[in-house]
Amino acid sequence: MKVAIIGIVNMGTGFAKSLDKTKHQVFIGSRNIEKAKEMAQSLGNSQGGSYKDAAGFADVIILAAPWHSMKDVLNALGDVSGKVLVDICNPLTKDFSGLDVGFTTSAAEEIAKIVPGAKVVKAFNTIFAEVLQSSHKFEEGLADVFICGDDKDAKEMVSELARDSGYEPVDCGALSAARWLEPLGMLNINLGYMQKMGAKIAFRLMRK
Amino acid sequence: MKVAIIGIVNMGTGFAKSLDKTKHQVFIGSRNIEKAKEMAQSLGNSQGGSYKDAAGFADVIILAAPWHSMKDVLNALGDVSGKVLVDICNPLTKDFSGLDVGFTTSAAEEIAKIVPGAKVVKAFNTIFAEVLQSSHKFEEGLADVFICGDDKDAKEMVSELARDSGYEPVDCGALSAARWLEPLGMLNINLGYMQKMGAKIAFRLMRK
Repeated sequence: MKVAIIGIVNMGTGFAKSLDKTKHQVFIGSRNIEKAKEMAQSLGNSQGGSYKDAAGFADVIILAAPWHSMKDVLNALGDVSGKVLVDICNPLTKDFSGLDVGFTTSAAEEIAKIVPGAKVVKAFNTIFAEVLQSSHKFEEGLADVFICGDDKDAKEMVSELARDSGYEPVDCGALSAARWLEPLGMLNINLGYMQKMGAKIAFRLMRK
Repeated sequence: MKVAIIGIVNMGTGFAKSLDKTKHQVFIGSRNIEKAKEMAQSLGNSQGGSYKDAAGFADVIILAAPWHSMKDVLNALGDVSGKVLVDICNPLTKDFSGLDVGFTTSAAEEIAKIVPGAKVVKAFNTIFAEVLQSSHKFEEGLADVFICGDDKDAKEMVSELARDSGYEPVDCGALSAARWLEPLGMLNINLGYMQKMGAKIAFRLMRK
């Protein structure tokens, strides 16, 4: 798969590091083109460039940008019709105390409204950058990546990316399930920071 | 601890079975007083009676009643000032497709408004009755019971009940964290039923 990573802060760097080692072709996009190119070079197998270059190259675009800049970032991608857009964000309020959207909608659904031609998939929002950048293996097993979206093939592509980077994908149904996954991301943030468990935590759905 | 279980359908029966075997004193309350007494007798160590008898007896009251009858049930308990009320419900819409309340409030917070003198604790809403009634031990370890509430001692009492019945309690902070725990309950229901994983599933927070 041709994968774009949009943003090179914590989550973007984590994805770049883990996907660079897979069979997939990675293009790192940043507002700071030089920095994206440097990161790509230091990783070895990836390319770097602008948001637009990265999005134009890829079949799957991972949006590793914060919620409050999402609209600007989406506008900078160019035409993303038919492409898979992976929304990994947690739409926090500016003071980080809660969610900015929810209940009757979700960040994922709001993103889908902005780029109706893209296949939006929610995933990875419960995975901390600290987990993504280190090992996702816990004593109990792999961390789960909860995935939802309205396009079956797009979800399968994201599931494959999750598997290839060492996670266990869990299909949570339609994109509207983001209304439950985003509060789970918020719970994760609450446990890691407010409840001071630290950010090396992850959820696993146990089955019998 | 003196524990009341309000309701003898799936969750209530599960609590009755697992708490009857602990050191705690259990009083099973039902609208059907005879049935509550029968259940208590068949279990061996518990008492049975009306909602009011059960609530009057207990320090900790587990509300194993559905969301849509909650107001009536709370009214039937009598004075619960100073007591610990454990809200285990998932406030589903009548067609089970989503949550009835959320985002700026939660079932737990709405219950606290109805009985302001009680110490409301949210817990167990992500534990299926099928898990509660069978074994809560999974290959990976114990199922987590996510707990939140505004009274520290009340949370500690509920944590002890969770531990004594074989779960691992996870303190999620203030009662308003129910805004994230209730969507997690909904996600659990969605995975178990709509995504057809079955109801013998449970979440575990993995830590390094």
